[in-house]
Amino acid sequence: MQKKRILSGMRPTGKLHIGHFVGALENWIKLQDEYESYHLIADYHVLTTNLSTENIYQNSIDMLIDWLAAGLNPEKSPMFRQSQIKEHTELFLIFSMLITKARLERNPTLKEQVRDLNIENVIYGHLGYPVLQSADILLYKGEAVPVGEDQVPHVEITREIARRFNNQYGEVFPEPEALLTNFARLPGLDGDAKMSKSLNNTILLSDDAEMVKQKLRKAVTDPQKVRKNDPGRPEICLIFTYHKKFNADEVDDIEINCKSGSLGCVDCKMKCASKINEWLSPIIDKRKYYESNIENVKAILNDGEIKAKKVASETMKEVREKMKLG
Amino acid sequence: MQKKRILSGMRPTGKLHIGHFVGALENWIKLQDEYESYHLIADYHVLTTNLSTENIYQNSIDMLIDWLAAGLNPEKSPMFRQSQIKEHTELFLIFSMLITKARLERNPTLKEQVRDLNIENVIYGHLGYPVLQSADILLYKGEAVPVGEDQVPHVEITREIARRFNNQYGEVFPEPEALLTNFARLPGLDGDAKMSKSLNNTILLSDDAEMVKQKLRKAVTDPQKVRKNDPGRPEICLIFTYHKKFNADEVDDIEINCKSGSLGCVDCKMKCASKINEWLSPIIDKRKYYESNIENVKAILNDGEIKAKKVASETMKEVREKMKLG
Ligand code: SF4
Ligand code: SF4
Repeated sequence: MQKKRILSGMRPTGKLHIGHFVGALENWIKLQDEYESYHLIADYHVLTTNLSTENIYQNSIDMLIDWLAAGLNPEKSPMFRQSQIKEHTELFLIFSMLITKARLERNPTLKEQVRDLNIENVIYGHLGYPVLQSADILLYKGEAVPVGEDQVPHVEITREIARRFNNQYGEVFPEPEALLTNFARLPGLDGDAKMSKSLNNTILLSDDAEMVKQKLRKAVTDPQKVRKNDPGRPEICLIFTYHKKFNADEVDDIEINCKSGSLGCVDCKMKCASKINEWLSPIIDKRKYYESNIENVKAILNDGEIKAKKVASETMKEVREKMKLG
Repeated sequence: MQKKRILSGMRPTGKLHIGHFVGALENWIKLQDEYESYHLIADYHVLTTNLSTENIYQNSIDMLIDWLAAGLNPEKSPMFRQSQIKEHTELFLIFSMLITKARLERNPTLKEQVRDLNIENVIYGHLGYPVLQSADILLYKGEAVPVGEDQVPHVEITREIARRFNNQYGEVFPEPEALLTNFARLPGLDGDAKMSKSLNNTILLSDDAEMVKQKLRKAVTDPQKVRKNDPGRPEICLIFTYHKKFNADEVDDIEINCKSGSLGCVDCKMKCASKINEWLSPIIDKRKYYESNIENVKAILNDGEIKAKKVASETMKEVREKMKLG
C-alpha cells in the first residue's frame, strides 16, 4: 500500500528550542517512517507579521540544521523553502478566489494573533495566511498535517478550499486531516505556559552544556519552596515538567523527594540539566557536523527543492488542466 | 532617450465591442509608438467575479485576435496571458503583505462592483484585485497605465505599494501614473450609458455589415421623434454619439437635419451603419486573416509570453535580491 503524504512546516525565525522539538519535530521524526513527509520552511509566512527579511535566509539555514540535527532524514523527506517554489504563490492566488473575506475574518487563530500582537490594522496577506497554508498543503496533496490544537481551524479551511476546488473544477485535491500532536507544550524558563523566542525563555537545541546549566539555574520553580528543605509542589513546577520529558525514569522519586523536602531545587535543576544535556549531546554533535559542512546543508536544501518543485509542478499541471487555463 | 513603459490590460471575457475600442484600444494603439507597451490578457482577474473558466482560453484567443485586428502591433508590444507567467502570483503574494485589509475595503471600485453585482459576501481574491493589478503593472516596471476614470483608485494603490516596497527593501519600482483616456464612453444600443456584454447592447468588432445594420435598426433613439418628420434631439440620441465618433464629417449636417425634422431616424441609422461598417471593414478583414491563421495567433501569443516572462523574471530577480530571499 502506498504511504499517505503529510506536509509539515515551520516559519524560519532562527534557531529552534526544545519546545519546538517536543511540540512538533519529535512528532515529525516519528511520522517520517509511516508517511511520505514533506517539510516546508515557510519563509513567506514570516512576512505576515514581520516585513523585515534581513535574516530570513540565515534563519532558514539555521532551522534546517536544527531539523537535520534533531533527526529529520533528508533522504526520506524533502526539505525546502516556500519562496523558492513559485507554485505556492500560483495556488495561493487561485485559492484566494475560493474563500470569502468573512470566512477568513472568523478564523480564531487570526483573532488571537491580532490580540496578542496588538495589531491595529490587519495586513491583507495576514488575513490570507490560511489560504497560503492551504496552498502549501495541497500543492503536495497532503493527506494529513501534523499540527497543534491552535492550527486545527486552518486545516478546516484547507478542507473547505479543497472541497470547493474539486466541486468547481473536478477532483484534484484530498481533504487533509489534522494529526494532533500528543505531548502538551513545554513551559518556558520564566514559568510562561510556552517557550517562545520573543519571551526569551527558551533552551535552544544548540545550547551547550554550560548554557543549559546557567539557564536552568535561573529558572522559576515553586515559589513556596524557598529553602532547600521546604516541601515543594512539583505539579506547578516547570522543572518537573522537564523531568517528565527528559528524565522519565527518575520522575517518581523526584516527585516524592520534592514533596517531602528532601530534594532541593538547586540539586533538582542540576539533575535536570544533566539529563537535558545528555539528550542534547548527540544533537549538538550533529549540529557541529552540519555547521562545519555547510555546503552539505545547502546541497540537502537544493535537493529538497528540486524534489518538491517536481511534485509542485505536477500538481499545478493538473490544476491548469482542470481549470482549462491553457 | 529611452521610451517610458506602459502596461495595459483587459479581462478576456470574449469578443470585443466598439466600446472597448473607443474606451481603450484606440488609445493603446496610439500609445504604442510613444511608449514601450506591454499588453496583458488578465485571465486570472476573471476569477474575481466568475469562477467558471470553461471558456477562458478561447476568450483569450478571441480577444487577442480583436487586438491584432484593431491594430496592436505584436512586433512592438508583447501580448501575454497573466496565468502563464508565474511571477505575477509571486509578486501578488509579496505585495499582499504591504497593504492593509482596511485600505482595500475603502477601494471605491470594489464598493461599486459589490453594489452592481449584488455581491453578498466579498471573495478574498476579489478584495485583493488591486493588489494583483499592482503586481501586473510593477512586474513590468510600468511607468504609466492607460485607464478610465474608474480605475484611477487602483493606480493610486499601485503607487502606494511601490512606495512601501521601495522604502522597506530598497528602490525597485517606479510609481506609475494614470494616463486618462480622453474620449467619453460609447453608449449601448439600448440607451444605457455604456456598452457591455452582460447588457447585450453592443456592436462587436467582429459583427459583419448585415449584423450592424440589424442592430442599429433596433437601437433606441429620441423617443419624442415618433414620425420621420418630427424634430429630434441629437444631444440625447446614442446614434448621434456614434456619428460623432465614426462620421465626424457629416455630424453638423445631421444635427441640423435631425432638429429640423428633415432627417428621419431610419435613414440616419442606415447612414451611421454604413459609416461604422466602412470603419469596421479592414478590422473584419484582418480578423478573418487571423482566424484562418490561428497558428500564427498562437505563435504571437507564445512570442509575447516569452518576452514578458523575460522581463518578469528579471524584475523578480531584483525583488528577491533586495529582499534577500536567497
Ligand atoms: S525540587 Fe525540583 S520539582 Fe520540586 S520545586 Fe524544586 S525544582 Fe521543582
Ligand atoms: S435622426 Fe438620427 S440623431 Fe436624430 S433622433 Fe433620429 S437617429 Fe437620433
